[in-house]
Amino acid sequence: MKICLLPGDGIGVEIVDAAVEVLDAAAKKYGFEIEYDKQLIGGCAIDATGVPLPEATIASAKAADAVLLGAVGGPKWDNVAPDIRPEKGLLGIRKALGLYCNLRPMTVSKFTAHLSPLKTERAEGADLLIVRELTGGIYFGEHNEAHLNADGVEEASDVELYTRPEVERIARFAFEAAKKRRGKVTSVDKANVLGSSRMWRKIVAEMQAKDYPEVELNNFYVDNCAMQLVLNPKQFDVILTNNIFGDILSDEASTIAGSIGLLPSASLGDGTGMYEPIHGSAPDIAGQGIANPLATILSVAMMLRYSLNQNEAADAMEAAVDAVMEQGYRTPDLYAEGLKKVSTSEIGHLVAQEL
Amino acid sequence: MKICLLPGDGIGVEIVDAAVEVLDAAAKKYGFEIEYDKQLIGGCAIDATGVPLPEATIASAKAADAVLLGAVGGPKWDNVAPDIRPEKGLLGIRKALGLYCNLRPMTVSKFTAHLSPLKTERAEGADLLIVRELTGGIYFGEHNEAHLNADGVEEASDVELYTRPEVERIARFAFEAAKKRRGKVTSVDKANVLGSSRMWRKIVAEMQAKDYPEVELNNFYVDNCAMQLVLNPKQFDVILTNNIFGDILSDEASTIAGSIGLLPSASLGDGTGMYEPIHGSAPDIAGQGIANPLATILSVAMMLRYSLNQNEAADAMEAAVDAVMEQGYRTPDLYAEGLKKVSTSEIGHLVAQEL
Ligand SMILES: CC(C)[C@H](C(=O)O)[C@@H](O)C(=O)O
Ligand SMILES: CC(C)[C@H](C(=O)O)[C@@H](O)C(=O)O
Repeated sequence: MKICLLPGDGIGVEIVDAAVEVLDAAAKKYGFEIEYDKQLIGGCAIDATGVPLPEATIASAKAADAVLLGAVGGPKWDNVAPDIRPEKGLLGIRKALGLYCNLRPMTVSKFTAHLSPLKTERAEGADLLIVRELTGGIYFGEHNEAHLNADGVEEASDVELYTRPEVERIARFAFEAAKKRRGKVTSVDKANVLGSSRMWRKIVAEMQAKDYPEVELNNFYVDNCAMQLVLNPKQFDVILTNNIFGDILSDEASTIAGSIGLLPSASLGDGTGMYEPIHGSAPDIAGQGIANPLATILSVAMMLRYSLNQNEAADAMEAAVDAVMEQGYRTPDLYAEGLKKVSTSEIGHLVAQEL
Repeated sequence: MKICLLPGDGIGVEIVDAAVEVLDAAAKKYGFEIEYDKQLIGGCAIDATGVPLPEATIASAKAADAVLLGAVGGPKWDNVAPDIRPEKGLLGIRKALGLYCNLRPMTVSKFTAHLSPLKTERAEGADLLIVRELTGGIYFGEHNEAHLNADGVEEASDVELYTRPEVERIARFAFEAAKKRRGKVTSVDKANVLGSSRMWRKIVAEMQAKDYPEVELNNFYVDNCAMQLVLNPKQFDVILTNNIFGDILSDEASTIAGSIGLLPSASLGDGTGMYEPIHGSAPDIAGQGIANPLATILSVAMMLRYSLNQNEAADAMEAAVDAVMEQGYRTPDLYAEGLKKVSTSEIGHLVAQEL
């Protein structure tokens, strides 16, 4: 199987290295073969080629069975022109691979519940999956940069646009996921204000009635959902939402876990899927061997499950991460007295051994 | 001075009654006169007139020095046609009065910090003001309901549009507010994706450089702000943002206080200002005399300050609410052992007496 590696910037390099070691160990144990092709994306691609998403990267990603991404960006590229910023690499590869479905599981682990900003008993046990539409909506509608309108007044605008097929394919994903989980979908929109949300709500309701009567469907307004995530995160199973609301709500939800160092993500479409930790490139700690690679390793577990059809290896990898945490090993971000402090590569070795 | 009273639906009636008693007491003590004109809005207006915002209500509001609103909506009107829903009354009066500036202070009171979903020490002491643009953006851009496009595919869309004058007037409000507070503005946008946000960020930066060099300006992406509100709400002073992001972030921020029963709001424009608690109409407890009127009373204090030019009375009213809480009086929503449980009207009397 071919994996396109996109370490990107900052700590991306170290965490992808650690995750590759774990993936290699899984391949050996479960008897499959992995070939890697390392490519550039984000700031390092700008430095080397002038653009954040070189053609070679797109070609390699398309040819691969899955893509593993570290992180992109950093203050070094704060002043490059808007259309070649590191994030454009990320948005570009989502579009190029047609990754319309972003999955962000958020589980409050027993190892981090006490670190949650929420009172521990509110956070503990929360286990939700955000299903975010990723290639439509206001992200990819027409952007009108600042310009003078017919009255000579400066204005700028963006279009939030959804089509029925776009809503249907992401909704189907959420319902299917809910069937394998606790059977509940909360669809989030702003149907009391937006036309696109009213269509969204209608299509989701139609699909539930027709194909998923056994799944419970609730509709929440986005403002209410932003409240409920803080007040009672345990009420949620699958949260289905559009691109911009998903961006906001998934970052909000990620805080509840107590550490973003353990949160993976998958971005899926009809072709190659892409996997990445939800944290950023953390340039302030890059190159010191102290970054936490567990979110990347858990992203590899999602890759095994969704792209490589290796469910057993995926389960084992998640169990190995748990076991290493149980044994008290922690990278500095999660270290506390009485635990064992280890480096990025050390915790990678430990997970690989545990497999 | 003329006050247009819009009790609205559910508990709106009781809480406005209690707040009127307190305002009358303040008028007597501080020597000004109040005349009331009670009008319909929301569900009760639909029942009586067929529309959520009768012409008489608009006329009364425009003629008044300030509007005091209770709350609108309830399950009774869940099935009315979309264009006459109770919320349309709210959106309509914002537009009719030109209320472009929504102010939502969120202070974690020492009486409710322990009720915050956040770990108490993270919440305690947080004191921020959200300045939300209220008559522009995707709320009032063109809404295209579901229809078949040229390719025969069903689609729906909305337009996020801002003009320079719209951004300037709300930004100025935020900078002026920051000068009277701790001197810090966090402007929230999604400039890495949206054209409207890039213009927003540019205009805000220009204004700061030219007119408010003494105010500290930070720019946060909306997803990051949604995280930071949970992780560290104390870092914020004034948060300046657009209509839709303000809707989401202000509801999220409101949870931190530990109770929405104490959170007021003001909506200001160039004419009459409108004041309302941020909580809803709570139909489940309406008519029982157990609703908490303190958010409405604190909204009246904002009215005294922003519309009636009675700063002394405003300060006294806020101090009276604090004193009554200090004495241990609580409506059932905030009651706990060792405290004194009182009704909606009783806590209103107590605040009025305290003045
Ligand atoms: C970097 C940015 C463009 C991106 C987004 O808004 O989608 C990020 O916030 C994310 O959620 O992956
Ligand atoms: C009721 C709704 C239309 C309204 C809004 O979205 O502005 C509400 O959520 C608010 O924040 O006042």
